[in-house]
Amino acid sequence: MARLQIKEGMDMLVSRSTNNGNTQVRVRGCVIGGEQLAIVAGPCAVENEEIMKETAFKVRGSGANILRAGAYKPRTSPYSFQGLGEAGLKILARIGEEMNMPVITEVMDAEDIAVVTDYADILQVGARNMHNFSLLKKLGKINKPIVLKRGMSATIEEWLLAAEYILAGGNSQLILCERGIRSSEPWTRNTLDLAAVAMVKEMSHLPVLVDPSHATGVRSLVTPMARAAIAGGADGIMVEVHPHPEKALSDGDQSLTPRGFSQLMKEIEPVARAVGRRAR
Amino acid sequence: MARLQIKEGMDMLVSRSTNNGNTQVRVRGCVIGGEQLAIVAGPCAVENEEIMKETAFKVRGSGANILRAGAYKPRTSPYSFQGLGEAGLKILARIGEEMNMPVITEVMDAEDIAVVTDYADILQVGARNMHNFSLLKKLGKINKPIVLKRGMSATIEEWLLAAEYILAGGNSQLILCERGIRSSEPWTRNTLDLAAVAMVKEMSHLPVLVDPSHATGVRSLVTPMARAAIAGGADGIMVEVHPHPEKALSDGDQSLTPRGFSQLMKEIEPVARAVGRRAR
Amino acid sequence: MARLQIKEGMDMLVSRSTNNGNTQVRVRGCVIGGEQLAIVAGPCAVENEEIMKETAFKVRGSGANILRAGAYKPRTSPYSFQGLGEAGLKILARIGEEMNMPVITEVMDAEDIAVVTDYADILQVGARNMHNFSLLKKLGKINKPIVLKRGMSATIEEWLLAAEYILAGGNSQLILCERGIRSSEPWTRNTLDLAAVAMVKEMSHLPVLVDPSHATGVRSLVTPMARAAIAGGADGIMVEVHPHPEKALSDGDQSLTPRGFSQLMKEIEPVARAVGRRAR
Amino acid sequence: MARLQIKEGMDMLVSRSTNNGNTQVRVRGCVIGGEQLAIVAGPCAVENEEIMKETAFKVRGSGANILRAGAYKPRTSPYSFQGLGEAGLKILARIGEEMNMPVITEVMDAEDIAVVTDYADILQVGARNMHNFSLLKKLGKINKPIVLKRGMSATIEEWLLAAEYILAGGNSQLILCERGIRSSEPWTRNTLDLAAVAMVKEMSHLPVLVDPSHATGVRSLVTPMARAAIAGGADGIMVEVHPHPEKALSDGDQSLTPRGFSQLMKEIEPVARAVGRRAR
Repeated sequence: MARLQIKEGMDMLVSRSTNNGNTQVRVRGCVIGGEQLAIVAGPCAVENEEIMKETAFKVRGSGANILRAGAYKPRTSPYSFQGLGEAGLKILARIGEEMNMPVITEVMDAEDIAVVTDYADILQVGARNMHNFSLLKKLGKINKPIVLKRGMSATIEEWLLAAEYILAGGNSQLILCERGIRSSEPWTRNTLDLAAVAMVKEMSHLPVLVDPSHATGVRSLVTPMARAAIAGGADGIMVEVHPHPEKALSDGDQSLTPRGFSQLMKEIEPVARAVGRRAR
Repeated sequence: MARLQIKEGMDMLVSRSTNNGNTQVRVRGCVIGGEQLAIVAGPCAVENEEIMKETAFKVRGSGANILRAGAYKPRTSPYSFQGLGEAGLKILARIGEEMNMPVITEVMDAEDIAVVTDYADILQVGARNMHNFSLLKKLGKINKPIVLKRGMSATIEEWLLAAEYILAGGNSQLILCERGIRSSEPWTRNTLDLAAVAMVKEMSHLPVLVDPSHATGVRSLVTPMARAAIAGGADGIMVEVHPHPEKALSDGDQSLTPRGFSQLMKEIEPVARAVGRRAR
Repeated sequence: MARLQIKEGMDMLVSRSTNNGNTQVRVRGCVIGGEQLAIVAGPCAVENEEIMKETAFKVRGSGANILRAGAYKPRTSPYSFQGLGEAGLKILARIGEEMNMPVITEVMDAEDIAVVTDYADILQVGARNMHNFSLLKKLGKINKPIVLKRGMSATIEEWLLAAEYILAGGNSQLILCERGIRSSEPWTRNTLDLAAVAMVKEMSHLPVLVDPSHATGVRSLVTPMARAAIAGGADGIMVEVHPHPEKALSDGDQSLTPRGFSQLMKEIEPVARAVGRRAR
Repeated sequence: MARLQIKEGMDMLVSRSTNNGNTQVRVRGCVIGGEQLAIVAGPCAVENEEIMKETAFKVRGSGANILRAGAYKPRTSPYSFQGLGEAGLKILARIGEEMNMPVITEVMDAEDIAVVTDYADILQVGARNMHNFSLLKKLGKINKPIVLKRGMSATIEEWLLAAEYILAGGNSQLILCERGIRSSEPWTRNTLDLAAVAMVKEMSHLPVLVDPSHATGVRSLVTPMARAAIAGGADGIMVEVHPHPEKALSDGDQSLTPRGFSQLMKEIEPVARAVGRRAR
């Protein structure tokens, strides 16, 4: 297996050798990278308070321990819904408070770091910004956990080097998230690369989540891939849940209903135990 | 999800709708596609009787129920070891007999179908021949089970249509095998596409195996990906095992030792139970 | 640039070093790999004598020097038109004779080599069979020129090694043909890789054609990519032409009309001269 | 061919239908998108004044009309040379002034837009930032021409939608640049997609450049691919030139020497004429 070295004899900060044991990121009572899996769930975007609250209440009831939703949305088309911005952050933070769940949301722009930091417990770098080194450098200077998604066609090496940008800046509260890479298969949105998760777990001390919703883009594949991710060694999953997927402003096709999410939780519990972890 | 139709109102033979329940392929007491997983193990190639026997003895002891090894090897270079041919088939068949294990081996050429059929219990179409429609048509006419590996960059649709060639010929003893597709990730040999397995299981009645050895090309990833495959819904795995991987004539880097295979079996047993299957 | 070696100090037969100058394949008065470009044109499949004759007459009039059409068609679905077989070969050979043009057609199966050799001047190995090493070995033993298309996701190295199978068998009348590789771009059928052509021309003595029809799958892109191919160093092009593309039994979307082909020829002539070649 | 629509009956701003004729971007006497090709040349990074000056002097002498070099470098590793920043911009601007050549340089971060705008004539968005929609929105508000490189695995549609972000912001001085996409071919750095250039030229009124240096990553392929790009319809090329490639701080393997660049210019001139353009 390749070595992660800065130079001969000096290993990178992401390298397993530089940290005894696995990094555990702690946030509001949750531990990411411990025996208990991180179960991150929520709608693609904050659409309004009611939907956010309903979703949060239900996913928490089924066993999610972290709430997710986007206020700033990286959309391929400038004419698509771009997210509610700070108004969305406020809703997300309020619901997180009420439900006593840490919240995670994406930051797309360095100039939004301050406002996102005010409201969110964990900041997410989306796949489209994994190579945005300016943003990564700035996130290395803040004191909040970061989730770094793998770029759409990023190699494992590039992903780990993007992580290194954040660690080298001084922020060690870092979580990786695999969300599929581009391939020539058109029936899934991306190709979920679980071997990359196993390889990163072997090479690095960082916790790794898997997002089966973006990876597949197909609702019925989310639960099987959540089971596979956990069996393969992931430290948790990140799943899109919407009370009415057919009316969602984005990513409806891949969102589980709350009932579907509840079923997912039932299915991953025995798998988690089979690999020495707990789902809740 | 896409429909698999010959024409409006007429579903393809691979389609789940054309077969009540799941296809089960039975061969010498083994059932592929039933509650018990198919565990196919053995060296990449038949090298000699001694290695074949040692490997078979050990993998059977750990719980493998089908023996694999190649006598005709599709090698990228004409100067690489091309397999022992019929001499290899004889060794394989003899060891299979002694160990009471059905044997599976690749057929690369239509003119070898007769001889391979004489010695093997299951014929494999390798990834490089998935689009070899002449071969597929001829395999549709024989009365032996076939394992059809997914092509190196084949889409799910193309894979199912290749299967349709065999079913349309009249041979319904068909097993699919995912072995990774090409992507831009260089640290693994291919990119294992477990979402394709879940999608095929949903769309088709055919059993699906996963080959984590060829999919990853990295020994330490084989066991985690075997666990993931089973949790994701695969009907079994196909794994390369060699008593001395460092001396193997092909694919040594991805071969498990017998001891590594024994560890794999220990790890997949609880995962199999977690999804309602049995590993042995 | 990588070395093409059998072992230390011994270059492969495809390697430029093993042949002083460029290989020229001569067939019925045509030279492939010389100053004059090889212009191969014709319908995807032999459909009937009338269409074949009309197409041949018109493409010859516009400057094509080799006629192409398939009698054995590798089709993704078993329910698609599979070609006319030997009846198609007869039509193709007769028209080639009448028009005094060498004909090229695909061989999909080793058992058809004899019959295809009887009728065709040049045998084509399609992209789906580039890794069919059994077929390649047998084509290394015949005395007819071969066109070896690059596999759908074959690397340059694998393509050259497939060529080596044929050369190592003793057949040195070999022509390569780039036809696009799979990528994640969905608006073209494949991604035409002209850098591969330039690289192969640098590394090997073999002539290289480009098939812009299969590479793009889009009629309006065929002529620009034919120009680009020639400017980039290709030794010729292979283009699908059909008198009524909208009625073609296969590949209509990418077929030029005879009038479109005539326009293509007008556009490539000055480009050919700009790089020291002749289009007719 | 796909339609570029905002909604039924309303075409996107990038669409050819919204602009009679081709967009021409004019900057300091240069026209990009006119009969004369844009020839952009220079080192990967501004390293120091001497190298910059030598390169500029020589590429101008050979016929380059725009000077390029990076002051902010998006580097995969945080430990690689990151560029000289504003000091580099000053050098670049000064040499551009002296040589009377407009200069182009990359902006990686929205907070650098003001300073880059002060020094550069054209701002480049690199492949890694094509999906950085926050940056694109801000560049839609400035009054300087933008070069938008295609993302590393961006589809043609995503590339055009990224362009739409800039046009929708009000900045119509936009130039596209194809620089290769990721594929499974390892011998070139990326896979140059010239069919995408031809397709974009057909669908959109925007000028399109091609960067054969980043596309191939191999020095000897730069000139053949520059010829191919121009024959295929590109409006110009962007080429890395360094007086001592073996000592370059980045991208030395793909940089031409000034002598190599002079040869490139000689070779593209007749190709340009063959397609009705001028190289100088």
